[in-house]
Amino acid sequence: MTLACPAPTGDGGHVIMGHGSGGLLSQQLLDRAVFSRFRAPELAQRHDGAVLAFEGPVAFSTDGYVIAPIEFPGGTIGELAVHGTINDLAMCGAMAEVLSLGLILEEGLPLATLDRVLAAAADACEAAGVRVVTGDTKVVERGKGDGIYITTAGIGRVHPRAAITASRIAPGDAILLNAPIAAHGIAIMSVREGLAFETPTVSDTRALHRAVAALLDRCGEAVHCLRDATRGGVGAVLAELAQQGGQGMRIRQTALPIAEAVEGACELLGLDPLYVANEGVFVAIVDGAHADAALAALRAAPGGDGAVRIGTVGEDRSGQVLLESAIGGARIVHLPPGEQLPRIC
Amino acid sequence: MTLACPAPTGDGGHVIMGHGSGGLLSQQLLDRAVFSRFRAPELAQRHDGAVLAFEGPVAFSTDGYVIAPIEFPGGTIGELAVHGTINDLAMCGAMAEVLSLGLILEEGLPLATLDRVLAAAADACEAAGVRVVTGDTKVVERGKGDGIYITTAGIGRVHPRAAITASRIAPGDAILLNAPIAAHGIAIMSVREGLAFETPTVSDTRALHRAVAALLDRCGEAVHCLRDATRGGVGAVLAELAQQGGQGMRIRQTALPIAEAVEGACELLGLDPLYVANEGVFVAIVDGAHADAALAALRAAPGGDGAVRIGTVGEDRSGQVLLESAIGGARIVHLPPGEQLPRIC
Repeated sequence: MTLACPAPTGDGGHVIMGHGSGGLLSQQLLDRAVFSRFRAPELAQRHDGAVLAFEGPVAFSTDGYVIAPIEFPGGTIGELAVHGTINDLAMCGAMAEVLSLGLILEEGLPLATLDRVLAAAADACEAAGVRVVTGDTKVVERGKGDGIYITTAGIGRVHPRAAITASRIAPGDAILLNAPIAAHGIAIMSVREGLAFETPTVSDTRALHRAVAALLDRCGEAVHCLRDATRGGVGAVLAELAQQGGQGMRIRQTALPIAEAVEGACELLGLDPLYVANEGVFVAIVDGAHADAALAALRAAPGGDGAVRIGTVGEDRSGQVLLESAIGGARIVHLPPGEQLPRIC
Repeated sequence: MTLACPAPTGDGGHVIMGHGSGGLLSQQLLDRAVFSRFRAPELAQRHDGAVLAFEGPVAFSTDGYVIAPIEFPGGTIGELAVHGTINDLAMCGAMAEVLSLGLILEEGLPLATLDRVLAAAADACEAAGVRVVTGDTKVVERGKGDGIYITTAGIGRVHPRAAITASRIAPGDAILLNAPIAAHGIAIMSVREGLAFETPTVSDTRALHRAVAALLDRCGEAVHCLRDATRGGVGAVLAELAQQGGQGMRIRQTALPIAEAVEGACELLGLDPLYVANEGVFVAIVDGAHADAALAALRAAPGGDGAVRIGTVGEDRSGQVLLESAIGGARIVHLPPGEQLPRIC
């Protein structure tokens, strides 16, 4: 019977098992870390869930984050988890409105770290115009986690002109990217390997829903497919789409946008940038006749100013992606078998 | 450059880091463990999210599961995670329709264990009439997890007559329970402590949405508040509700439903059953004039056949819950400070 005892207060600076109890310590942790920062009226009800109303079709998605380290150049696991679900919804042609926030905390995590991560998540929500309306917090024993794991889920309204599915990819479609590749993976690797580059690379974590909205406003049904190039990078996404739809694709190595410092780091680390993870890059496959309009729309939108065309969907039904090199050769872009960089998101 | 190499196949029997890569191994794991079992058309699209349509208000909720052990008498973490979000939605007066499934797997987890857990989750979905429409899988290194963590989120349609909020709790309201208490916590503790009781106790994990629907069909707006009594048990839920609404509540110890074996185990283990976790028990606070109708509706519904009235909301504004003992004494039911049993859900 613990009831007559005063509440254990922990050491005041770290997550303790009692923070996961659903009792007074849980309340105190949530007051400090969550309710002070995330201020949606639905969340303030402190109920088991949030009641919402949507007219028309919505998209629903979830994403889990287990990145190591949880703080890295250009971000933390907090904004990563917010942006990630916003972006998954955007890839369905939907504009995120509400998120859930599921935290799994490891005993011993400094509360200051939790504060920084959740502050970053709250800032990302505010900048993106989305709100956290429901959540859950669990605590696991020291050695059974890795600081913080976050699983977000989200709901967003589908853009009225969205008609996005891999089955609409067709011969002659243009393959576009919104931004330079491989920054996120290199930012993480440089921390893990303790590398200091002359030009430090920061993660490209960003919300993509406004770029997608601009694209759909302008090109509507001419946008056939969208996919964000996170784990496995642009290479994995294209290989998977080509395989799914049975389409052949050709991309040009010289057209792939990549920052000089990132390219140098990839060479040094022996990584193929095509397979390095991104957190703010997506592939848009668009009716070829609308390629210029699509690029113009993206370039005028936040997160799309680096938009370029990297290739074309071919007439063949090979289900394969060919990468044409600068010197005229070509190689098949395979779905990577395993992992170049584990725990990247 | 791993592209020319054949895919690593792991040892064939365990989760390896490559299963979290987003590449070929991820595809193989998802084909085997997820897509073979969860067959919603939205999931089969293999997109970043699911497109859905809802008319009228919906509820949205999330819950994370870190229970240890992941398999226990009466269930696994799989059905627990499915039932948990169904139940959180039910406590908002909403009938779950779709779920997301976020998995965090530890390297080395036997695939056979994953199969059993996901089979149990799929069976629970089918029995409850809900479908998994989107998901995510991550893998963490050995020693950075504990087998499987699952975070589900869900969306459900709000019952047309639901008007459920702690602020509607009023003097004279009846406090009801649907089922006997403390079974889940005792089932978990008996495994952890290696205890063999004459009558083995199994978890009460179950979906509660049909019992809630029956209650709302019958009593509608007379149902003032619903809350499932998971972590912290019935005691924590009532203490929190009384505190939130500033209401006084009185419950009778002799009215608390509890199986004899569970009560005996609580005594043996030194646990107060009022604070032991449940996975299939909820508190319904109902206009006192409708108490009998509410009990009749619950008793005729799945998961509600053990429904009883345990107390009443008083006229006082103490914000406290009083437990009246069999011998006429009374004690305050406090919000438990920390944790009786960590990692219980």
